[in-house]
Amino acid sequence: MAPHGDRSDAAEEATAAQLEKRPISTVVIIIGRATKIADFYFNVPFPMQTEALPLVDRFQLIEDRDSLFPKGVPWVRYHGIYKDLNINLIWPGKDPTLGVDSVGTISASLVAYASISALQPDLIINAGTAGGFKAKGASISDVFLASEVAFHDRRIPIPVFDLYGVGLRQAFPTPNLLKELNLKAGKLSTGDSLDMSPQDEASIVANDATVKDMEGAAVAYVADMLKVPAIFVKAVTDIVDGEKPTAEEFLQNLAAVTAALGESVTQVIDFISGKCLSEL
Amino acid sequence: MAPHGDRSDAAEEATAAQLEKRPISTVVIIIGRATKIADFYFNVPFPMQTEALPLVDRFQLIEDRDSLFPKGVPWVRYHGIYKDLNINLIWPGKDPTLGVDSVGTISASLVAYASISALQPDLIINAGTAGGFKAKGASISDVFLASEVAFHDRRIPIPVFDLYGVGLRQAFPTPNLLKELNLKAGKLSTGDSLDMSPQDEASIVANDATVKDMEGAAVAYVADMLKVPAIFVKAVTDIVDGEKPTAEEFLQNLAAVTAALGESVTQVIDFISGKCLSEL
Repeated sequence: MAPHGDRSDAAEEATAAQLEKRPISTVVIIIGRATKIADFYFNVPFPMQTEALPLVDRFQLIEDRDSLFPKGVPWVRYHGIYKDLNINLIWPGKDPTLGVDSVGTISASLVAYASISALQPDLIINAGTAGGFKAKGASISDVFLASEVAFHDRRIPIPVFDLYGVGLRQAFPTPNLLKELNLKAGKLSTGDSLDMSPQDEASIVANDATVKDMEGAAVAYVADMLKVPAIFVKAVTDIVDGEKPTAEEFLQNLAAVTAALGESVTQVIDFISGKCLSEL
Repeated sequence: MAPHGDRSDAAEEATAAQLEKRPISTVVIIIGRATKIADFYFNVPFPMQTEALPLVDRFQLIEDRDSLFPKGVPWVRYHGIYKDLNINLIWPGKDPTLGVDSVGTISASLVAYASISALQPDLIINAGTAGGFKAKGASISDVFLASEVAFHDRRIPIPVFDLYGVGLRQAFPTPNLLKELNLKAGKLSTGDSLDMSPQDEASIVANDATVKDMEGAAVAYVADMLKVPAIFVKAVTDIVDGEKPTAEEFLQNLAAVTAALGESVTQVIDFISGKCLSEL
């Protein structure tokens, strides 16, 4: 069953082509806390907000108090105009009942859906920290721009359903951005568990992933469904296939990695400003 | 961080109490294909729509062609008035790219969110098929009303985050409905994989689950966040901890189970008609 109109495909393509040729205007940045590694290994609480706040300051955003979102949801939006871009920084917030960060694919997909519906952005940027695989070339503090994203914990071993479960999607291609910013390129794999079961590991290998998070493929699913280009900026806080760092070493890493992520997202925004999608 | 106003909690509670005392008006039924067992074991395609269509006929619903939902989403709504109830039957539809049913927690949570936002229902009914555990008393064709729902594939081994991952939620209590309809009560566990890894199995045991699906806890998460009561009607198509049936036996089961599910959902709707939430 082809959902909805074949009728207007040509018109849509024409519109999409036009959009690619005018400067990007509205950007939604969805912040994800990817690995929660500080909590995991050292029981050091490390709020997701830490990832958002440097960017809030940098872009001089203000918190949206009369939320775009329905009452009851914990999602937080910071917004403002920066270099002619309408910037919306959104993080899924804290679970209303438990008070912990709303990590994972369900929150990320809902936030992406609600943000796109309300703001009709030209581009989604999913930014956050991630675990990296040294066997695939990742090091602490590397910032990756994902070339493609997929799930590693949705095993449906039926023909075609298996592909649906993996949910492989290409990031919006940004060759000039990648070159200009000297970011690393790699594939991103997403799952709802912080640990890595043998089944997850096999899927991550099958996905050929260099970095692992808890949100990316969910954001990609929604962005693809609603036809909004999406890119994924992920900074490596820990090496999944390496020696675990000491607590002290890790906390040093974390401060540096968070700064690196903020710096990279700022560079991405600066690069995007005044350009159209086709110039990325 | 307490999300949004503490200011109006008392007013809200008063409103909620009033709502519980007026007859239920709008119901959203979210159809989930839970186990896809026919495909899994026998590679017999069995569309999710099969679960929806008997109810569409029974309640004389019509398909909503000018969708409530944004362009591009595959979600399908059938709606109509049946016994003074505004019935909305919603299924996540087929993946626009791959053509297979949009199973799993992300689709279910998005459909729940969009349906609640658009329709402000008094009650959500998540209806579908499920795998059952015979060690917990499940048999083929049993229809369960879940007492509580939780996830079994979101492992986050950090204090409090672990509870967030499990996402345990109570179904809206319906003691009279349970007694009147002679349904079985049991706990429901939800995950995005069709198979069951050892880690999933341990979590399902920890969840004390009698039935296993791919949507329930995601619907519960969204319904709880948006403060809409939700119940879960799940019919057992296969026994997870038993001998696998022959293809022939299974297909016989499936027809019977689908009929049993349709019958139970009809009985639930008939029971609800004219009652307020507090009478369920």
